[in-house]
Amino acid sequence: MTDRTNRTGRRRGGGSEARRAARVAASEMQQAPFLTRSLAPYEVISEEGLSLIEENADTILERVGVEIVDYPEALRIFRDGGAEVEGTRVRFPRGLCRSLIAQYAPGSFTQLARKPERSVTIGGPHVVFAPVYGPPFVRDLDGGRRYATYEDFENLVKLAYVSRNLHHSGGTVCEPVDLPVEERHLDMVYAHMRLSDKPFMGSVTHPDRARDTVDMARILFGADTVENNTVLLSLINANSPLSWDFSMLASARTYVEAGQAVIITPFILAGAMSPVTVAGTATQTLAEAMAGMAFCQMVRPGAPVVFGSFASSMSMQSGAPTFGTPEPALVLYTVAALARRLAVPFRSGGTLTASKVPDAQAAYEAALTLSPTLLGGVNFVLHAAGWLEGGLVAGYEKFVLDDDQLGAAQALISGVDLSDNGLALDAILGNGPGKHFLDNPHTFDNYTSAFWVSELANNDSFEQWSDEGAEDSVARANKVWKERLARYEPPPLDDAVVEELQEFMARRRTEIAAERDSA
Amino acid sequence: MTDRTNRTGRRRGGGSEARRAARVAASEMQQAPFLTRSLAPYEVISEEGLSLIEENADTILERVGVEIVDYPEALRIFRDGGAEVEGTRVRFPRGLCRSLIAQYAPGSFTQLARKPERSVTIGGPHVVFAPVYGPPFVRDLDGGRRYATYEDFENLVKLAYVSRNLHHSGGTVCEPVDLPVEERHLDMVYAHMRLSDKPFMGSVTHPDRARDTVDMARILFGADTVENNTVLLSLINANSPLSWDFSMLASARTYVEAGQAVIITPFILAGAMSPVTVAGTATQTLAEAMAGMAFCQMVRPGAPVVFGSFASSMSMQSGAPTFGTPEPALVLYTVAALARRLAVPFRSGGTLTASKVPDAQAAYEAALTLSPTLLGGVNFVLHAAGWLEGGLVAGYEKFVLDDDQLGAAQALISGVDLSDNGLALDAILGNGPGKHFLDNPHTFDNYTSAFWVSELANNDSFEQWSDEGAEDSVARANKVWKERLARYEPPPLDDAVVEELQEFMARRRTEIAAERDSA
Repeated sequence: MTDRTNRTGRRRGGGSEARRAARVAASEMQQAPFLTRSLAPYEVISEEGLSLIEENADTILERVGVEIVDYPEALRIFRDGGAEVEGTRVRFPRGLCRSLIAQYAPGSFTQLARKPERSVTIGGPHVVFAPVYGPPFVRDLDGGRRYATYEDFENLVKLAYVSRNLHHSGGTVCEPVDLPVEERHLDMVYAHMRLSDKPFMGSVTHPDRARDTVDMARILFGADTVENNTVLLSLINANSPLSWDFSMLASARTYVEAGQAVIITPFILAGAMSPVTVAGTATQTLAEAMAGMAFCQMVRPGAPVVFGSFASSMSMQSGAPTFGTPEPALVLYTVAALARRLAVPFRSGGTLTASKVPDAQAAYEAALTLSPTLLGGVNFVLHAAGWLEGGLVAGYEKFVLDDDQLGAAQALISGVDLSDNGLALDAILGNGPGKHFLDNPHTFDNYTSAFWVSELANNDSFEQWSDEGAEDSVARANKVWKERLARYEPPPLDDAVVEELQEFMARRRTEIAAERDSA
Repeated sequence: MTDRTNRTGRRRGGGSEARRAARVAASEMQQAPFLTRSLAPYEVISEEGLSLIEENADTILERVGVEIVDYPEALRIFRDGGAEVEGTRVRFPRGLCRSLIAQYAPGSFTQLARKPERSVTIGGPHVVFAPVYGPPFVRDLDGGRRYATYEDFENLVKLAYVSRNLHHSGGTVCEPVDLPVEERHLDMVYAHMRLSDKPFMGSVTHPDRARDTVDMARILFGADTVENNTVLLSLINANSPLSWDFSMLASARTYVEAGQAVIITPFILAGAMSPVTVAGTATQTLAEAMAGMAFCQMVRPGAPVVFGSFASSMSMQSGAPTFGTPEPALVLYTVAALARRLAVPFRSGGTLTASKVPDAQAAYEAALTLSPTLLGGVNFVLHAAGWLEGGLVAGYEKFVLDDDQLGAAQALISGVDLSDNGLALDAILGNGPGKHFLDNPHTFDNYTSAFWVSELANNDSFEQWSDEGAEDSVARANKVWKERLARYEPPPLDDAVVEELQEFMARRRTEIAAERDSA
């Protein structure tokens, strides 16, 4: 008992800085390459209701179909795959898309990281977190809001790399607008390869850029590895409603032909790009995603695909997108269930917000997006950290605040431990009324793994918090991201690979410049 | 179509102030006395797992039982009710508590408000929101943190009264520490009666104060009404682990004998007052709550009781309580399921946080408490607005920020509308690819009820938000609570009732002073 008291006593000593350091150390040991759930996802619709939505999606694909913009080759692929093509419109016999997906698309797949221990399994009971994607702006407490640069891009890749909670390096963590648009995909892919050893995403803005991504992956991983494994996961958005354009669909084709994975995501501002109802939005999402995933199976049967869904609500007064609201949560739960019935991995959710700054609005909305993300059974969570202002801004403080919240996910989706140790009957029987459990042997046996504790939250007394500067979340987060960047060290990478990547990039820059000049 | 365009156009005009006014007006029309869910609660444990916990709770009640501190009369009641009493320890034959509760305790009940349209049904598919309870401090943006006064108490009652989302006036919305402790219960009850017409809670710090509350309720509602209806709901906390003290249990008895409802709540800082595991904490909560609810049925069979659970995690490093973490969420889901199996109403959750200020930490933690509160199937939500700093502080800005989030609850717990209108198949079929839905007749028919929109969130563009002062959540919330207090008007109350209440309070103050002097 003396030993216990001493050890408990030692852990209680020190200031909040010491405690934070202890938590960081404990958390670093726990890092897993991805999460695994034991808690069954929340089902908000009955089997009958889901069947009804599936029937309706088939009706949409049969009667309206999808419009293919500026991509005749895709029309040929669809026709060869069994669809009915009329002009640029593609209609699908009932059940065609579903049967192609059911027959060929894997239920889960592994995306290799260049450090093998960091490879992720996407699908099934697994959850993978990736950072924000796409913002042209960044914000931090010191500099406010400004256009993103390549330095910001590198910083965000570094923050994702040192994160214990993000499993994936993501893709366009921000748009480096200081780089020429025709070349910046090379620099972005290079940053993921050089500054991180976590898995990453490829360029999708043009099939040539997708091809460059695949070529660089061949240098990094070796051509054989790329041929026989998934090393890239890339984000292909529909033009909702019911339309696909050349850049996205041709990029998807490039990746799929190279054996690489894509996320097929209807990106929907409900009310503008779909009906204003939850079930209507889910139905349209299913129809669009099935068309896209079927296309991939037509290109290369067995292609790893992820069913994506991005749905936000909108203010019907102003037309502004809104986040963290109940309707997108219900869409997420519904589409997650539809994805499970299709037996494909599912991407949705994140820590979304419309707030301009990482304030209470941002956190309410982020948490109320993250909650359905975790309970609904999302497998790949893009925008898991850093999203601000409807996705226009990557926030440095928001990044580390969200990241911290992701640390709670595994404890939640592990569900309730009903082992004898979890039930703790003997502990309760042995403890007796009116006595605290701090010295109970059961407490002592379990205290290191007992409760998730945030690294960024302040749980100190008011007096201690005041004495230490009365910092709010954002002030603490500002220090944390700076500390993390300061202690960042790049993971080792073979000099020959670096050289080959740089040669490739130099050659491509020349070619791209020549193309630009001749255009 | 012209008409539609015009009306849509008009709604889109005006600045953000005009839009907020429109949202407030729309929201005022929608006010319901309580919420009703159609979405089934999230079940995180199988029937077998729940049975195991129930078996263990019976084992605890049989072998350890509960300790009754300083209340011999309660021991007699327990003995007469069939329990085994040995000294101050009460043990229960297996199944006794459950069978008393199953036989007598109502599955739901109505608490009358003095304005009949505001009466609430507690239990079943219904959800009732009540404000924060118990803080000795308040905080606002202007004055910072300070001891709460009676003026603060009145202000918080007023803010709950004007809230469209809070259904209940609560109880000790803060501790008015400027009033003498022996008398302040009179002033608190009076404020709820005079400044609000929503249902409210009674004093529980001594059975005499409970009796005063009942006497004042007889003046307000009439003695017959009190005899035959529930007009008071009061909060009875266990001294966990497995102990009940005189003030709480005798207060419970006073209310129950008067036909009034009580919430029996094990208030547990897990790891200190229960085992560090989710299942262990849930088991102990069930045992303690069953003992308390059985006591009420022994006092008066059929007494309306609410099964309460308050469980927070703690930092095992510092001993500080932590909120919005995954383990208390899992406890909540588990105990909610146990309460459903007991067929009694359930109280838990809220918008809890350890943060000292209404920052991102506060909002993440509040949202991640509110989410399980809504998905788990809580019927009575105490601390639904205003809680800061582990319950030590009632925050004015936090109050209105939380309140705003409660506005989203009904849309969430209504689940997915699978009617033809909800499925919106014709809208999708008729709209076609590539065209927005803003002019779709289905959008037009549904836009007023389409999406929940926050009154406090800012969804404007960065430019508009900047032009209007770049206010964060707290700055906006500061304006809102001041506006609300400025426009507050007390609900009408018969002068004769006011006079009789004041006479009663004056008499009781004299008696209390005499008791104090003779003590």
